[in-house]
This record gives sequence, structure tokens and C-alpha cells, in this order.
Amino acid sequence: MKEKLKGNLLVAQSGGPTAVINSSLAGVIQEGWAHQEITGIYGALHGIEGVLYEDLVDLRREKASTVEGLRSTPSSALGSCRHKLTPQEYTRILEVFQAQNIRHFLYIGGNDSMDTAHRVGQLAAENGYDLRALGVPKTIDNDLAYTDHSPGYGSVARWVATAVRDAGLDTEAIGVVDKVKIIEVMGRNAGWITAASALARDHPDAAPHLIYVPERPLVTERFLDDVQRVYDRLGHVIICVCEGVKGEDGRTLVESLKAIDRDAFGHPQRGGLADFLCRQVAGELKLKARFDKPGTIQRVSMALASPVDLDEAYLVGQMAVRHAVAGVSDRMVTLVRESDEPYCCTTGLVELEKVARAEKVMPDSYLNQAGNDVTDPFLQYSRPLIGGPLPRYVQLERHPVPKLLGR
Amino acid sequence: MKEKLKGNLLVAQSGGPTAVINSSLAGVIQEGWAHQEITGIYGALHGIEGVLYEDLVDLRREKASTVEGLRSTPSSALGSCRHKLTPQEYTRILEVFQAQNIRHFLYIGGNDSMDTAHRVGQLAAENGYDLRALGVPKTIDNDLAYTDHSPGYGSVARWVATAVRDAGLDTEAIGVVDKVKIIEVMGRNAGWITAASALARDHPDAAPHLIYVPERPLVTERFLDDVQRVYDRLGHVIICVCEGVKGEDGRTLVESLKAIDRDAFGHPQRGGLADFLCRQVAGELKLKARFDKPGTIQRVSMALASPVDLDEAYLVGQMAVRHAVAGVSDRMVTLVRESDEPYCCTTGLVELEKVARAEKVMPDSYLNQAGNDVTDPFLQYSRPLIGGPLPRYVQLERHPVPKLLGR
Repeated sequence: MKEKLKGNLLVAQSGGPTAVINSSLAGVIQEGWAHQEITGIYGALHGIEGVLYEDLVDLRREKASTVEGLRSTPSSALGSCRHKLTPQEYTRILEVFQAQNIRHFLYIGGNDSMDTAHRVGQLAAENGYDLRALGVPKTIDNDLAYTDHSPGYGSVARWVATAVRDAGLDTEAIGVVDKVKIIEVMGRNAGWITAASALARDHPDAAPHLIYVPERPLVTERFLDDVQRVYDRLGHVIICVCEGVKGEDGRTLVESLKAIDRDAFGHPQRGGLADFLCRQVAGELKLKARFDKPGTIQRVSMALASPVDLDEAYLVGQMAVRHAVAGVSDRMVTLVRESDEPYCCTTGLVELEKVARAEKVMPDSYLNQAGNDVTDPFLQYSRPLIGGPLPRYVQLERHPVPKLLGR
Repeated sequence: MKEKLKGNLLVAQSGGPTAVINSSLAGVIQEGWAHQEITGIYGALHGIEGVLYEDLVDLRREKASTVEGLRSTPSSALGSCRHKLTPQEYTRILEVFQAQNIRHFLYIGGNDSMDTAHRVGQLAAENGYDLRALGVPKTIDNDLAYTDHSPGYGSVARWVATAVRDAGLDTEAIGVVDKVKIIEVMGRNAGWITAASALARDHPDAAPHLIYVPERPLVTERFLDDVQRVYDRLGHVIICVCEGVKGEDGRTLVESLKAIDRDAFGHPQRGGLADFLCRQVAGELKLKARFDKPGTIQRVSMALASPVDLDEAYLVGQMAVRHAVAGVSDRMVTLVRESDEPYCCTTGLVELEKVARAEKVMPDSYLNQAGNDVTDPFLQYSRPLIGGPLPRYVQLERHPVPKLLGR
């Protein structure tokens, strides 16, 4: 542990926005107020780009009510970016830090951001500039390793579970018209968000009936068999499919579709995954299919944010400041699950470099053999993260009235 | 007014599900309990099809808590349908009504359902069978005439406003990557739902920046000019477009796309409207564009249902029963706005046939000249329907830190 270091704190937000990333920002600012060794509390606009261009804002001048209001405001209040720094740019970052006397750098983001924070810290050390660089985890994708889960995930999981339950009831009611509904869910290499749709089920035949994630290949013939089987049993089918789902060749279906389109017609791909699968279902099974693609709406909904997620996002921001003033550097704050029931989570630390190099996909034990559903251990893992059960819906018992006429 | 008529009441739900159509059902059942002349309270499964096949359920045998729970359960608990009856089928309907001693028929739905209810009532009258046929308005599309608005609309409006505000903040934050976002909103000939996205704006530059509805032609060149102009000013653009939007030839763009695809390549259309517009923006303006298409998710969200809408949906169900037992027939219950501020709405009645024949699109005064936005009178009309303002979000004031380095 190093001695206490007086200077300015700089916080930045990176990658895709979430419902709770501003809660982490609020945690950083409010905890920052409590430490005398933190002089200025600065925010960089649009992530590391704000540092590069010295676009910094003075967060101490924000009203206390605004800072508190960040806890119920989704998206990234400082603006975000996706920027891979060049070596020259790293040098520039350090120059800005020196000029602005930045001594605590907190980067809220995913594994690319952890890589950036690590390299900035490394360069500072090489140049004898005393800097504490810490990572604050954030990603709806839940693909950060060494942490039980990532802030942002619980809220998108609650959104998806809620939307799929609602959209499932919709198809159940009007299934005489639209037999098959495909809901395309966010996610690149990891199916965590799509898998969370299973939390929608409040009875055995409830939606979703089929779940496809990138960890298991989606083979069109098997997919169509799955759809037909559910349809024969229930008369309607709700399918959740991850946008990053892959074929047996390991390429995403979207990549393959682009290639097919280009090969055959020489024009760029259209429609995308859910649209393609709908056309397969309509063409091969002769069932009317439609798709919902909520897109970015799913990741920034404050109305459906998980209270557990909001609190944990705040906590990791707060803890990053405490660790920084205590002399910790080159670490990301992690969430450590102490128990499932009652759910209890504390925080830990992990080396930034380890997080930066890793990607956490769903383990085999969370997915069924057929590759079209999740298992109970996944439900046990994910249920506490959405912050309480979904509100109860009723189902009519439907006691039949005796028929008095023949056909 | 006819004298009191003892017999069974039959209620059915039709068309697209909504967040509040079960509230109307609860209103019917609970009001039904209060009238001695109503013996059985029956529900038809899947709308008029349940009558055709005599698939009726005894709603008096449902638990009181289940009936109350309908008020917070979205979609159509009895199941829905889209079924245009043949003359033979109308005869069959009357036979079932006679056999089951149905004396009060309440049909919850849009203008097709009002047509069905009217014809059933007419046939009963011609055959000297005493029946009270009443319509209970329901449609997210808000296109029923002779009523200030339709139950179902306020809730989808609240959902869309909320989602567009969130998705707008998302693009604002990460706009350095995705410059343009197109959100495809439900609606065939009427742009009411898409227009409600304007309720998302909590400051002058907030999303949505452009709104396109079927009441005004969408001309691609003008659309691209609009997008470029907003982009030049703000650096990002959020666009809400109704799925039923039309070109200058009066055909929907989706129909035109189908025709183009078939002509050129002989294969069916793919992707659809938002995808097409994204490709136009990317191709012509060289701006990265993405689309969100929430689809059915938008119409059945209980989490974002408007409390005003829930109450009014209950009220129209309740009033339909009261009118039926008072001897009214061949009428739909309407909502009559008494005042905007404070918002106050009562109910009225209109002939089923008049409603069945009409479709209410947005009046000129609710749309701007350029055909890419709504006007203040529309905001005044729609604001009370979503049941209170959206929760407040904060914005950082962003006081700049002085730059100490040159570029």
C-alpha cells in the first residue's frame, strides 16, 4: 500500500450505455466527497476521448440533487466511446494526467476499458508518475471474468424477462393468427442476456419455449424441428435468440447471411438474424412468424432496472474510490457472491490485466444438452440479480360451460 | 328503454392484445356481480370463435382475487382472434346465444368487432330474440371514431415515450459510434402511437428528432434531407417511424419494398421498413444507422401501463354492463373528455354501425407542415392519457475544466 496521495480524481464511462452506469458514477462522486486527499472530481466526456482532447468537466460543481438523480437516470451521463488508443495516444493521456494533476483514474466499462486503464497505469509507473488506475465493472453482456456478475446485467435481464413474458402472453392470446414469435436479444459471444429470458416463465408451458445462445451452434434443421415440436404441443411458439448466435462453422449466422447475400446478389445483407429465421419458419414449416427486435431499448430502461443491480453498480463505484485513496492500483472491483438465499454480495479486487484478457461465456452446466434451453443452476444464479420476482399475473381457470349444441 | 331482461351475459375479447384489455374484462365481471338480472357470466374463448365453437367458460366460478388480478395482467385472458364471420356463421352465433340463453353480449375490441356486435344484434332483432349487444372500445391504434381516445392507447403511448427517451439517451451517449437510430413503431393507417413518441422530449434537442406517420407521405429524398439537417446540428439523430408509413403513391413503403424485391430478384421481401431506411441512411448519407423494432412488446407492457388508461378500460367495461341491464343495445361505450386540465373524462354511447364504418386518423392540426413532427395541440391531447409525466431524469451541467495543454 502506498501513502496517501493528494490530487484530482478523474472518472470516465465507456462502451454501451446501461440502466445503471450512472449509479456507478454517483457512487464515485459521492464517495469522492468524503475524502480530503481528493481535490478535484473531474469527468471525461465520451470516455477516454475526453482525456485525449482534454474535454473534462468539473463534477464538484454539479448540484448534489443532480448527482443523486444520476441513480435514477439511465445511459451514460458523461457520454461514452469505443476507442482503441494508439501508443502515441497513451503518451498524450499521460501528459493530460500530469498537466491536470490526475492521481486517481477510475474507468467504468468492460474488458476493453480494463485494458485501457491497465496500460495507462503501466505507462504512468514507467514514467515515475504516481497514479492509481482502477476499473469499475460495467457491461450488460455479463462477460467480464473474475466477478460473479457485472453491473448492468441484472437490469437488462429483468427487462428481457419482463418483455418476453408479456410478448409470450400476447402470442398465446392471438396465436390463432401469429403462431411463432422470435425475439432477438443482444449479445455477441455470450448468451447471458438471452438466457435470462427463462426468468419469464411462471408456469411450465410459459414463454420462452426455445432459447438459442452463441455457446451452442444453431443448426437450421434442428431449429426447425424444435419449433415444429413445440408448435405441435402448444399451437404457438416463442423463441429467444441471441443476435450473436453461431452456426456449426463457428461463424455468426449474421456473418454467414451477409456472405450468402453478397455471393448470390452482390448487394449487402438485409434484415438480419430474426428476419432470416422467420422466413425459414414461414417457408419450411408454413407457420406465420413475426419478430420483435427491441435493440438498444432493452439496455437502458430505468423503469425496469433491477434494484439489486442499481445498488451494486453504486457500490462498485464507491469501493473503487475507497481502494484508490487507500493506495490500490491496477485493479478492477469485483462482485463476490456470498450466498444465494438470502442473496448476499460483497466486493473484491482483481488485476486489470487478467480481466482485460478474459471473456466469460456461459458454462456448460447452465445450458441443456439439446442446446435450446437453460438449466436450473442458471436460474438459481440469475434469479437474485433481477431484484425480486416479476409482478404476479393471473390466469383464468377457464371452467367450461357445457356445450348444448352439436357442431 | 326495454324492460329488465333476465339471462346470461357473454363477454369476449378481440383483435390485438393490450396492456389494459383485461381491465375491461374485470370491469364487466365485477359489474356483472352487482345485477340480479344477470344470471351466468360467461366468457368466449378466442373472441367470436369461442361462440362459434361453443367454447365458453363460466366466469362466475373464477376466484374474486383472480378477477381483481386481471386489472394488473396484460394481454387477453380469454384469448383473442381476428375472424370475419360468414352469413352462415352469424346464424350459428344466434343459435348458440339462444341455446345458452345469452341476453347480454359485450364485445371488447376495435371497429371490426363493433361491426360483428352490430350484425349479431341485428340478426337477433330480425329473429325476435331479445338481446343487448354492446361494444367495449379497445385498440392501441387509437383509430376508433366517436370516442375521445381508445383504451389501450394511453399505455402503448407511455411505453413508446419511455422507450424512445431511453433509446435517445443511449444514442446521445454513444453517438460517436451509432449516429442514427430508427425506431419502428406499430400502426397501420393512423400514426397516433408513433406520434406519442414526442412525449419523450424533456428538452428542445431531446429525442425523437423526426417523426413520420402514415397521414403524411414519406419521400425518401426529403427524409434524407431531414436526417442530414438534424445530424449537422446535433451529431446524432433519433427517428420514430410508423410501420404503416406511406409513399406519395399512397402505398405503404413496406408494400413498395415487397414489389421492388420481387421485380428485381424474384424473391420475397426481407427486413422491412426500418431496415430499408437504415440502408438508405448508410448508403446515401454515409452515416452508421441501426434500428430498434420493439414489435408486440410495446403493446402489452404492464410495467409501463398508464394508470389513467387502466382505470378508463375498467370504466368502459363497467358502463357497458350498466347500459345493457338498463336496456341499451347496438351501442359502443365512448370516452368523452370533459376537460384537459385537470384531465377529466366521462363516458357516452355511439351507434355500433357508425363506429364500425369509421377510422380516425390524426387530424391535420396535430401534424406539422413538413410532415416530420407533431404539433402542440397533439401534445395537449395525448399528455393526460399516459397517466402523469415520465419520471424525471437529470442532466449534468458539464462545467468545463480549463484546458492546460494545446492540441
